[in-house]
Parts: sequence; C-alpha cells; structure tokens
Amino acid sequence: MPLWKIYHPENAFSDEDKKAISEKITAVYRGLPPFYVGVIYEPVPKSSFYVGGEPADDFVRISVDHIARQFNDEETKLRFLNIITQILNPYVADRGLRWEMHVDETPFSLWSIQGMRPPIPDTPESEKWRTENKPSPF
Amino acid sequence: MPLWKIYHPENAFSDEDKKAISEKITAVYRGLPPFYVGVIYEPVPKSSFYVGGEPADDFVRISVDHIARQFNDEETKLRFLNIITQILNPYVADRGLRWEMHVDETPFSLWSIQGMRPPIPDTPESEKWRTENKPSPF
Amino acid sequence: MPLWKIYHPENAFSDEDKKAISEKITAVYRGLPPFYVGVIYEPVPKSSFYVGGEPADDFVRISVDHIARQFNDEETKLRFLNIITQILNPYVADRGLRWEMHVDETPFSLWSIQGMRPPIPDTPESEKWRTENKPSPF
Repeated sequence: MPLWKIYHPENAFSDEDKKAISEKITAVYRGLPPFYVGVIYEPVPKSSFYVGGEPADDFVRISVDHIARQFNDEETKLRFLNIITQILNPYVADRGLRWEMHVDETPFSLWSIQGMRPPIPDTPESEKWRTENKPSPF
Repeated sequence: MPLWKIYHPENAFSDEDKKAISEKITAVYRGLPPFYVGVIYEPVPKSSFYVGGEPADDFVRISVDHIARQFNDEETKLRFLNIITQILNPYVADRGLRWEMHVDETPFSLWSIQGMRPPIPDTPESEKWRTENKPSPF
Repeated sequence: MPLWKIYHPENAFSDEDKKAISEKITAVYRGLPPFYVGVIYEPVPKSSFYVGGEPADDFVRISVDHIARQFNDEETKLRFLNIITQILNPYVADRGLRWEMHVDETPFSLWSIQGMRPPIPDTPESEKWRTENKPSPF
C-alpha cells in the first residue's frame, strides 16, 4: 500500500524522471514506512492506448490502490489530490501531456507483506517498521 | 473514468480492431465526455496467462474501473453487460476466444483529470466538458 | 474471478514456476469452477519498479480482485492469506525476493463470462459449471 500504476506513452519518462517521481510520491506518505509505497511504470504504445476512442501518445493514466489508510473527509482527499498535482505537473502538464488519475480504497485486512499482516497504524510495531523501513515479525 | 484494461493474447487484435472496439466502448458512455473513456490493451504471452492453472492463448480478460457514475439498480447493470457483450462478441466469441470481464466501482471524490476534480454530473460545467470534449477550469 | 496480477522482476520465474504457482493458486479456490481463476504475470524491469522510491529487482507485487465470493469474517481472511503465503514462499521469500499482496473485493453483479452472468453459488447451475469446468447457458 499504496500501489501506483502509471501507464504512460513510450519514452515519456527517463529513468531519472521515474525515480524522481517515485521518490516524491513516497514522500507524500510520510506517516508510512517508505517501503509500503510501490510504483510500477507501464509504457503503452499508441496503438494500445485510447482516450475517447482515439489512439493517444500524449496521455498518462494513473491508477492507485490505497490499502493501509483511508481518507475520512473530503478536505483531506482534496488536499491529497492537490499535492499530487503539484508533484506531477512538471512531468506531465508542463510537457504537454494530458493526464488522469483515480484512487481506489481496498480492505486493510486483505493485505500482507512478506506473508505478514502489517501492524495496525500508530502502534509501536508500526513505528518500528517505519523507522527500520522494513518488515519484521511482531 | 471509466478505465478499461483488456488483457489479450498476442496478435488477437489488429490496430483497426483495437480502435474500433475503443470507439464502440466510448459510445456506450454517451452521457459522459468522450475523453473520460480510457482503454488500455495489454498483450499477454501464453506463458504468462493462466486460466484454471492452464496456459491460455485463447482468452481475453477485461478489468474495468467505473468512477464517474455508479449503477443504481440490477436492471441497469444487466443491460450494460448485455450491450458490452453485443459489442465484444464479434471480436472475441465469434473468433473462438473465451472472455471474461468484471467492473469495480471506485470513489468519485478520489479522481482527477489534469489536476482538476471533474464537475458533478448534470451541471453546466459537466455539460461544457462533454460538448467541448476536453477539461477546462470551472 | 479471482483475477491475480503478479508483477515480478524479469526472469524471476521460469515458465514451469509460473504454471506451478497458477495451479496451486487455482487449487485454493476449490469450491469454484477452476476456469474462474485467472493469473496474469507481468515482468517489470528494474527501472520501472519502485519500492519506497528505490528501483527494485527483488520485489514481487501481487494484486488480486475477488469477485465471485467475499470473505465474511477475519478468521477466514487470515487463513486465506496464510495459505497463500505457504504456496508462494518457495518462489519468493525462499529465493530472497521481497513480496507484498493485497486483495480487493468487487461486485458480483458486474461480472460476466462469455457474456453470461455466472450462476449464483451453491446452485445446480453453479455446480454444473464447476464439474464441467466451462460455462454453459442456463
């Protein structure tokens, strides 16, 4: 959690871009162990990527699953989306790429890391995972 | 919204097929701005595609996220699935391909396009996006 | 249903591994028709796979959609995750690969196979699909 999937035109992002975006996304979730944040980039050729029925080579589509935490109110959701926009715009809008993202929220209790259910937030075990940035039995 | 991902055997669809399917899917959502409809095709080699534990080169698996609108009743869901079946059958069943699809519904409030939250349905702003077929500040 | 997507480092799994894992996953859902169980493997190069902002070539990320059945209680969820861990560990942890998985539950009524809505569980039609291991009109 979270799992980000970024579908993008081939050659839209350099390896440096991809690392920088991933670092910035990871930093947004600063209450979580950094290793919770997974980002997968998937290049999609124009002939396999359609927006409104037209092939697209200028479109970035992001699909995110949030598992560890849910947003409880509208203000937090809006703030989150705005922070992400500030992070991404230099890599997308400012380069003339259209983009869209959506987030799904999935059940905490159907999630495991290294075969362990992650600790409940705001517990000593959770803090240990965060500061050590790796999972450990508890 | 919606985001369609179509996992298919390599060479199952020509570029013309992919465009035609995308156009027909887009037309189903005629109340929405066409550019809301994203379709991504992902070819999967037989050695990476399993149905019931057996490698498959005759199977199309479709996974859809609906964000902008939710279905409120069973009749609408059934009608939607039937329309999609009519659209897809010439490209799948009629070519001897097995196929399966499912739709998830994800939160409207965790969705953004070009960094903007899309307008509420059935508002003048939403109608503007639809007729112009592009997002604009509001 | 279920649909498993397994994102893995390139060359992490042989074709034999992929088939064996798929067979074992399919066997977990023994109350379902085997053909309900889809598994898609997606190799991800290190430069497109990030954990905590760092490129990863030792990480397997699994995302599952459960459609046909929902888990009703915590004990069942935990038992499920533990069984999956036993199945996967020889292919992941025992080979030094980190791994994470999560499951989402999506609506039964927005699911179709060959254009048919699958039969309700524990009905004669459902049992027919299971024993024949293929869909049929009902």
